Amino acid sequence: MTLPSRCGTLHGVGVGPGDPGLLTVKALDVIRRVPVIAYPAPPQGDSMARGIVAGYLPGGQIEIPLRMAFTSDRVSANAAYDAGAAAIAWHLVEGRDVAVLCEGDPFFFGSFMYLFARLSQQYPVEVVPGVTSVSACSAALRVPLAALDDRVAVIPATSDEAGMEALLVSCDAAAILKAGHHLPKIVRLLDRLGLADRASYIEYAGMASQRIRPLAEAAREGGPYFSMVLVHKRGDKP
Amino acid sequence: MTLPSRCGTLHGVGVGPGDPGLLTVKALDVIRRVPVIAYPAPPQGDSMARGIVAGYLPGGQIEIPLRMAFTSDRVSANAAYDAGAAAIAWHLVEGRDVAVLCEGDPFFFGSFMYLFARLSQQYPVEVVPGVTSVSACSAALRVPLAALDDRVAVIPATSDEAGMEALLVSCDAAAILKAGHHLPKIVRLLDRLGLADRASYIEYAGMASQRIRPLAEAAREGGPYFSMVLVHKRGDKP
Repeated sequence: MTLPSRCGTLHGVGVGPGDPGLLTVKALDVIRRVPVIAYPAPPQGDSMARGIVAGYLPGGQIEIPLRMAFTSDRVSANAAYDAGAAAIAWHLVEGRDVAVLCEGDPFFFGSFMYLFARLSQQYPVEVVPGVTSVSACSAALRVPLAALDDRVAVIPATSDEAGMEALLVSCDAAAILKAGHHLPKIVRLLDRLGLADRASYIEYAGMASQRIRPLAEAAREGGPYFSMVLVHKRGDKP
Repeated sequence: MTLPSRCGTLHGVGVGPGDPGLLTVKALDVIRRVPVIAYPAPPQGDSMARGIVAGYLPGGQIEIPLRMAFTSDRVSANAAYDAGAAAIAWHLVEGRDVAVLCEGDPFFFGSFMYLFARLSQQYPVEVVPGVTSVSACSAALRVPLAALDDRVAVIPATSDEAGMEALLVSCDAAAILKAGHHLPKIVRLLDRLGLADRASYIEYAGMASQRIRPLAEAAREGGPYFSMVLVHKRGDKP
């Protein structure tokens, strides 16, 4: 066996927020063309990223599920990324292109950056940007996020309250990500800042289970991980 | 002539940041299917949004260019949006679907929100989210924008220095949009905050004229409107 004259390219492919229609033309082209696909997946069960593109896959591709517990500590996560990067590198060395499927956008709160950090020094890497969950939530809520000179803050709900407050005070509009488990903190803060009536809430935006409901109700009853609060301080400016 | 039993649907369609390959499958479907397309355009000359999708258009569609000077004051701009909304409404009343082509994402610093504000009470509206210029710049610079609990600020470069500073202090990563004409202010601020070596600069990301160069050089020589500064305060975390 001889090594191929060139190694394969690693493609970080954004597959969008959930609706298969929100894949880009370029993403579709890459995932149909490459002989190897890799994707994050839970320890057991199906990968969300693979599920988004399932209807487009040509079949017969080598698949590398990057299995990781949702709650992994950094040490376990880094070990999993090391192993995943090694599995991917083996195909790249053999000359096979590999597409890593990334929910949303590869460089916007995705796990692709951990593979990028491990592989981009040695192998050619291409990144295909994707539609983010922020855009999907804004569209589904029918709430414009930003215009003109608006300053926008994107805040993971895991942020401490002081850090979240500093940004909410300084911005004109905000998206608070993965809000579900942190709604009491978020509502308390928005109430204190007088912004509660400027906030919209959505769960599973753009997916079959999408649900829009009052923020106060969601705060009482609890919400899922895939949820977002959009805040518009200036109101309906146009 | 009888009026159709239903009026048409207004589609706000994100066409992405410039590369025709970054259109979504859904956007492609809508712009090929509708009998009428509308798009922002300068007083004379070609529309950037239309240019992005030109290769996909089937031909024979009615076209409504929404012509507006780049530097329009709000009064002139509102008059132009009123006229554009009226032209679009006429087709909707006649039962024809209309797609408004929006650079990037329709609700993320786009002009679609002004048409949405004028038409969404009377007519059915669908919004197709798109890839933003922030994602395109991050991909082209090969710089991951955010991970884990990172707080991200998106700041138009027209922001006053105090407002920009407040967000830069509170966030973990920032995208400063339309940076070209404001680079001296941006560089001065980044220097003062000790963040100059954490910043990357790009012009015309994802377009044929894309150019990546040192921020300090661009600040000396000047940059165009379509330019962005990405700032990563925590450095290369993975």
